[in-house]
Amino acid sequence: METRAEITFLGTGTSIGVPVIGCDCAVCTSDDPKNKRLRSSIHVRAGGVEFVVDTGPDFRQQCLREGIRRLDAVLFTHAHSDHIMGFDDLRRFTVEVDDEIAIHATEECLDRLRAAFHYVFDGHNRYHGYLKARPHAVCGPFALGGLEVVPLPVEHGKVETVGFLFTQGGERLFAYIPDAKVLLPESRRLLEGIELLVLDGLQPQPHRTHLSTGEAVALAAELGAQQTWLTHFSCRVDYRALEPTLPPTVRLAWDGLKLRC
Amino acid sequence: METRAEITFLGTGTSIGVPVIGCDCAVCTSDDPKNKRLRSSIHVRAGGVEFVVDTGPDFRQQCLREGIRRLDAVLFTHAHSDHIMGFDDLRRFTVEVDDEIAIHATEECLDRLRAAFHYVFDGHNRYHGYLKARPHAVCGPFALGGLEVVPLPVEHGKVETVGFLFTQGGERLFAYIPDAKVLLPESRRLLEGIELLVLDGLQPQPHRTHLSTGEAVALAAELGAQQTWLTHFSCRVDYRALEPTLPPTVRLAWDGLKLRC
Repeated sequence: METRAEITFLGTGTSIGVPVIGCDCAVCTSDDPKNKRLRSSIHVRAGGVEFVVDTGPDFRQQCLREGIRRLDAVLFTHAHSDHIMGFDDLRRFTVEVDDEIAIHATEECLDRLRAAFHYVFDGHNRYHGYLKARPHAVCGPFALGGLEVVPLPVEHGKVETVGFLFTQGGERLFAYIPDAKVLLPESRRLLEGIELLVLDGLQPQPHRTHLSTGEAVALAAELGAQQTWLTHFSCRVDYRALEPTLPPTVRLAWDGLKLRC
Repeated sequence: METRAEITFLGTGTSIGVPVIGCDCAVCTSDDPKNKRLRSSIHVRAGGVEFVVDTGPDFRQQCLREGIRRLDAVLFTHAHSDHIMGFDDLRRFTVEVDDEIAIHATEECLDRLRAAFHYVFDGHNRYHGYLKARPHAVCGPFALGGLEVVPLPVEHGKVETVGFLFTQGGERLFAYIPDAKVLLPESRRLLEGIELLVLDGLQPQPHRTHLSTGEAVALAAELGAQQTWLTHFSCRVDYRALEPTLPPTVRLAWDGLKLRC
């Protein structure tokens, strides 16, 4: 079958990454590369374009590791620091795309980007090599190259947060929802029976603003997702201990994992 | 001689680090570890306290590399993204110091931190494990453990920027000035004949807002600094090519370098 999308997991960690600074737990001190997690983000090549979802503080390191040299756009799920604080490192991609890079985020998220990176948006930043962005407010489905991108509203604490469903020619390719506690009804409807789902599965223990691993497994089953990859893990997820306990349609992602669909 | 201060260079790179994303130059593709540069920052153990100067986006990675497990304070030179965007990763240190960490920065820099990381400062952030900061406006010399810290105003483009002179019992230990084009007269006076100086030396080529290597060497000579270490390098600095051309009192720093004084 023709590859329509290539997805690279740039990071699969929660806000503080794994290992956690100063933590001596078995996962943080593990040698297993699948227990090393940068902040969650994916790179996607599909529909004739390349883009990333979220630019956390590890973004430069992730681009160097994966040899990313071109980006046509950036999508943001929400404005928490672990998803936006690498924004300035996008400057290396602005020369290639008409000296501006397309930024797709909710109006609330754009406001946070404007507050944190005012010099990108205030119109005074004309030096060559500095980051220049063309912001697009996400308030419904939008085109990205040959793709249609459908925002999926979710509940994730107090901050406005979305996942994204990517479709091409009316067919669903995959959905990416790295931070969620509850999917809203309209999001659930769009995901019923989806072939490939990437979903928050923070840790086995319950959490106030994230799906636990068990909650994510149950949700994937309710949706009838054919293959689900969990992401956005804390150091309570030991890859080799947890992976064998999951049903065959659910797996744990890791940094550097590539999926094709 | 007794060690009064231990300085670790967490990073010696300019705003985009080295290697630069998408750059194929000889330095960016070099295997020499002294040509690998995270964003500039130092960790200091002196006067009974531990602190860092600046928290760029590489801050978590730098803490893990150097095994930093305690911080009593953070000093900021200025609010450019390469010096502040790792701020949220300080959350791992707030449990140790009365649930707040002391932040020393100019009022302008504190305003930028408040804009970018509003949740740290707005009083609503009471969850355990989230970053809590106790901001102190730098407007003159201040005490830090057994040290006296003297801000050194410099010119560095449009943003208010300082370096820092660290003294103990009236004796100068060292000064750290990672971003500067011009030292103001009061800063120069405080540095005359200093034993240990760390100074911006971006690259051999002139730059609008940074000292070139040659300008930094000349300035160190004018000041009569006994030993100067340059930092904050672009990929135009090839360690092995440039280091032998410098006078004996000036050297190039590298990521992981430790100095004692």
